[in-house]
Amino acid sequence: MDGTTTIRAPRGRELSCKGWHQEGALRMLMNNLDPEVAERPSELIVYGGTGKAARNWECFWAIVDALRGLDDDETLLVQSGKPVAVFRTHPWAPRVLIANSLLVPEWADWETFRELERAGLTMYGQMTAGSWIYIGTQGILQGTYETFAALAEQRFGGTLRGRVCLTAGLGGMGGAQPLAITMNEGVALCVEVDPRRIDRRLEHRYLDERIDDLDAAVERAEEARREGEPLSIGIPGNAAEVFPALLERGYVPDAVTDQTSAHDPLGGYIPAGCSLEEAAELRESDPERYVREARASMARHCAAMVGFMERGAEVFDYGNSLRAEAKLGGFERAFSYPGFVPAYIRPLFCEGKGPFRWAALSGDPGDIAATDEAILELFPEDERLGRWIRQARERVRFQGLPARICWLGAGERHRAGLRFNELVADGTISAPLVIGRDHLDSGSVASPYRETEGMKDGSDAIADWPVLNALLNTASGASWVAVHHGGGVGIGKSIHAGAQVVVDGTEEGALRIERVLTNDPSIGVVRHADAGYERAGEAARALGIKAPMLGR
Amino acid sequence: MDGTTTIRAPRGRELSCKGWHQEGALRMLMNNLDPEVAERPSELIVYGGTGKAARNWECFWAIVDALRGLDDDETLLVQSGKPVAVFRTHPWAPRVLIANSLLVPEWADWETFRELERAGLTMYGQMTAGSWIYIGTQGILQGTYETFAALAEQRFGGTLRGRVCLTAGLGGMGGAQPLAITMNEGVALCVEVDPRRIDRRLEHRYLDERIDDLDAAVERAEEARREGEPLSIGIPGNAAEVFPALLERGYVPDAVTDQTSAHDPLGGYIPAGCSLEEAAELRESDPERYVREARASMARHCAAMVGFMERGAEVFDYGNSLRAEAKLGGFERAFSYPGFVPAYIRPLFCEGKGPFRWAALSGDPGDIAATDEAILELFPEDERLGRWIRQARERVRFQGLPARICWLGAGERHRAGLRFNELVADGTISAPLVIGRDHLDSGSVASPYRETEGMKDGSDAIADWPVLNALLNTASGASWVAVHHGGGVGIGKSIHAGAQVVVDGTEEGALRIERVLTNDPSIGVVRHADAGYERAGEAARALGIKAPMLGR
Ligand SMILES: NC(=O)c1ccc[n+]([C@@H]2O[C@H](COP(=O)([O-])OP(=O)(O)OC[C@H]3O[C@@H](n4cnc5c(N)ncnc54)[C@H](O)[C@@H]3O)[C@@H](O)[C@H]2O)c1
Ligand SMILES: NC(=O)c1ccc[n+]([C@@H]2O[C@H](COP(=O)([O-])OP(=O)(O)OC[C@H]3O[C@@H](n4cnc5c(N)ncnc54)[C@H](O)[C@@H]3O)[C@@H](O)[C@H]2O)c1
Repeated sequence: MDGTTTIRAPRGRELSCKGWHQEGALRMLMNNLDPEVAERPSELIVYGGTGKAARNWECFWAIVDALRGLDDDETLLVQSGKPVAVFRTHPWAPRVLIANSLLVPEWADWETFRELERAGLTMYGQMTAGSWIYIGTQGILQGTYETFAALAEQRFGGTLRGRVCLTAGLGGMGGAQPLAITMNEGVALCVEVDPRRIDRRLEHRYLDERIDDLDAAVERAEEARREGEPLSIGIPGNAAEVFPALLERGYVPDAVTDQTSAHDPLGGYIPAGCSLEEAAELRESDPERYVREARASMARHCAAMVGFMERGAEVFDYGNSLRAEAKLGGFERAFSYPGFVPAYIRPLFCEGKGPFRWAALSGDPGDIAATDEAILELFPEDERLGRWIRQARERVRFQGLPARICWLGAGERHRAGLRFNELVADGTISAPLVIGRDHLDSGSVASPYRETEGMKDGSDAIADWPVLNALLNTASGASWVAVHHGGGVGIGKSIHAGAQVVVDGTEEGALRIERVLTNDPSIGVVRHADAGYERAGEAARALGIKAPMLGR
Repeated sequence: MDGTTTIRAPRGRELSCKGWHQEGALRMLMNNLDPEVAERPSELIVYGGTGKAARNWECFWAIVDALRGLDDDETLLVQSGKPVAVFRTHPWAPRVLIANSLLVPEWADWETFRELERAGLTMYGQMTAGSWIYIGTQGILQGTYETFAALAEQRFGGTLRGRVCLTAGLGGMGGAQPLAITMNEGVALCVEVDPRRIDRRLEHRYLDERIDDLDAAVERAEEARREGEPLSIGIPGNAAEVFPALLERGYVPDAVTDQTSAHDPLGGYIPAGCSLEEAAELRESDPERYVREARASMARHCAAMVGFMERGAEVFDYGNSLRAEAKLGGFERAFSYPGFVPAYIRPLFCEGKGPFRWAALSGDPGDIAATDEAILELFPEDERLGRWIRQARERVRFQGLPARICWLGAGERHRAGLRFNELVADGTISAPLVIGRDHLDSGSVASPYRETEGMKDGSDAIADWPVLNALLNTASGASWVAVHHGGGVGIGKSIHAGAQVVVDGTEEGALRIERVLTNDPSIGVVRHADAGYERAGEAARALGIKAPMLGR
């Protein structure tokens, strides 16, 4: 009961619940706390700071009990990680409905949230932690892959072959960059102030080489560029020094971004001229000066990025607040280049594209191999998708239940789901799958600092859409549905929803899959068409979505 | 298209849509804008300041078209009064899903809201305006009746017979007080600074007598009290003068409250010593002094109420902020008496009791008469309910479609719904009914200044419950479901949900009615049991609700 037990989802075809929808929820809840998957399983923390799967261990075991006893026409309600009730609904209804971390807006700040959390009344659900569909770091790699793929498509004809991308930061998220760039066939130059991070990434084969001398690194990159060879190079150094140095030499990479932890000018970003030890000391002895120096460094760092942009490089912000901090550091033109969402992700959202994922409840990697094949067969014309799937099956190590993630859009997801259902029915796949997704998706999130930043019509803060998304998925037959507050960007700053559907190989399952995987991405298309994005309007028309006010 | 057409719901048994669930939504939307029902129909404003039924007239007609064309397995999505999409779901799913006025919390203030509204991106839905189930002023009368009935039950053995209630304010809401008190068999003394308001209430038979002399009024009240005669008396005067004057004389009523518009110290409350004309002038010439004087008056007004309390009267705040303003006016002990929700409404919420209502889609008052009979037959032991129904059928004038409201709890509502369904099936009732409710209900609202003020466990601001409520009603087969923000107390201050179910006389209808009307109030019981209310815990056990963590 106390978190000393190791949690691992049951595998195989045998049910521990009364039906596969419940079983899917149970296994994915447990999988979220598998030590291979979760960051701090003993505290029920899955990922993303303090994103939890259940409020406490007593609640966790009560959820498990409730799921095991749940009938096929019952629905379990979970309030911020606590199982509060089971009601009789009907077979097509979701088996679990979840609301996590929601607060009345005037009270929606971290201070109040933490107070309520200490009083045992709520839990931080992040996005996929409290909705039981986190699958480990594959998601980060794939999201980064997709961002660079979108960049390649918009700017470089669909590939990064023969292109050099400069970036910095090889931490938890940023460490995916070198592999994501080489998976897109490009060359990555990655500046990282902490050499141990470089070495760790070398070890995990996310990074190919470490070159300590800047000139040598550039030379090696240029050579690979000429050969069209995918290659990633880690350069020990401070981005606030290395970026300006490269600019001074007149070197212009094809694309430039940054994933140092700029959002945290005291705890995260290392000021120029400081060793890691000196930084740690200064942080303690004079935190104000630390922040001042970090911001001054970020101003130089960001100014160099604007310089690259002015010389023709494709430059974007990767959601780490570097621009805002650089502006505080005195660099006025920090917001000269766009954020990654408006630049690359929103055009995908306009087609309902977002991170689609599935896990094999069997525990058998062969089941995922079968789905990989199916995806390649279903979408042979999608070069970018094919490249991802082919490389992912070689390079991605599964954590917990075998799983796959890729970005599919409206009109595609339900085709994949229905095909998987056939494969479960005919035994090619050995047990049911769960299909789910991140809350970061086309029609499921309102988050003015990230997913809905700078919407064309100014509707960034309108939060009707994620709630409609959850209601719609509930009405469409999802297996479990969640509405959360504060994921990604923090309490007060976002409202978002998630939905999962179990692929059980039955005909009723096929109907649920078809409805959920058609409607869920389609509301994303509608949300963007409503905001005035032409591309979304065209997608809505092409897909035959009934949108009464479209074009009015 | 422009609001010059008068809107009135179709009547009778003939469908203008493809099914009764859609038809119910269509008729109730139109009924909300019936000039008999709506405050400013030409602007689509139904009630409650600027609570609207649709974003604009173009959206209104597009909703009408969408509902008329909607198939029995389709669902229409409405985003802040705009019909954004129609998706194929399944027959048991709601036909309409609505999200109104929701904002990401950090942006959830009136200023941002009004800006987004001006940009055409949102709409204020209040509670039953944007969710299409407002039925006119009967709701106010019944809510006030129920509050005084609860007071009577707690303090005076179930009736106000032989009791005098002192109050002030005979405006839009407050004007229901005299009738609500006499319906509870009591004597009402109502102080109102504007004599025209008194005369209007006399005209509408909400008030029995006007007596301008204070001593004469008290004498008449005491006489009625002795006789056990229900009687209401309007006294022209300022509460900040009349209340202290009564206290000085040593007069102690049995119960005291107030519904002057104290929440608005500049536009609403008239300072002592001012005529209405003087008040209007001062408001213009020196608004700061106006507010100072109004608050000083409220301090005296409130101090007198505390004085009555200390002499044994039952005193409560009726949600108008008099206590907060009186405190600002210098009276420290303003919060000595409780608000009406913790005092009287919460014990009802603990049993899932809240404002339950239904409307006759036939337009035939005889159908409501049949439901009144059915309610009296179903709950013969409920004296309070019987008193309301018997008096309401005589005294309540229908506005728009004939409708009835009463408070029923978990374990009761579904019995009423199922009985109505039989009466529709056997033709006693001539066409389907719609059953719905206010968002102010047991398990459907988070509103720390009103419905969830001072929760036992401090969970006032937790907003998971209204969202779970909406998801649960969607999963239970409601005909339409809505989630709103900011109703009652304003933007930023509340999140709440509503659900309606059509009573069509079919067997499938009976299942939906049974699920929705069992689950919807039951989640209210669970919410209060979870907060530690013993009465709710007992109700949950008595009703056999499955609550996994109850008592843990
Ligand atoms: N918006 C999004 O979706 C999104 C996605 C990914 C990452 N991010 C942001 O990206 C940033 C990185 O995330 P993370 O999880 O990798 O953080 P992290 O703290 O794990 O890693 C940051 C890395 O930057 C390095 N670093 C710090 N200062 C440096 C400097 N001056 N020069 C070179 N390297 C330096 C650190 O040594 C560390 O390895 C965060 O700000 C995060 O919020 C946002
Ligand atoms: N929390 C709730 O659910 C709830 C329910 C009902 C009413 N209220 C509150 O009750 C108040 C009344 O609502 P309303 O719609 O009737 O408002 P209203 O403005 O229509 O009526 C207020 C009445 O008070 C009178 N008045 C003002 N100052 C007075 C004074 N000093 N002495 C005597 N009479 C005075 C006015 O002439 C007017 O008739 C509001 O503050 C409202 O917010 C709250």
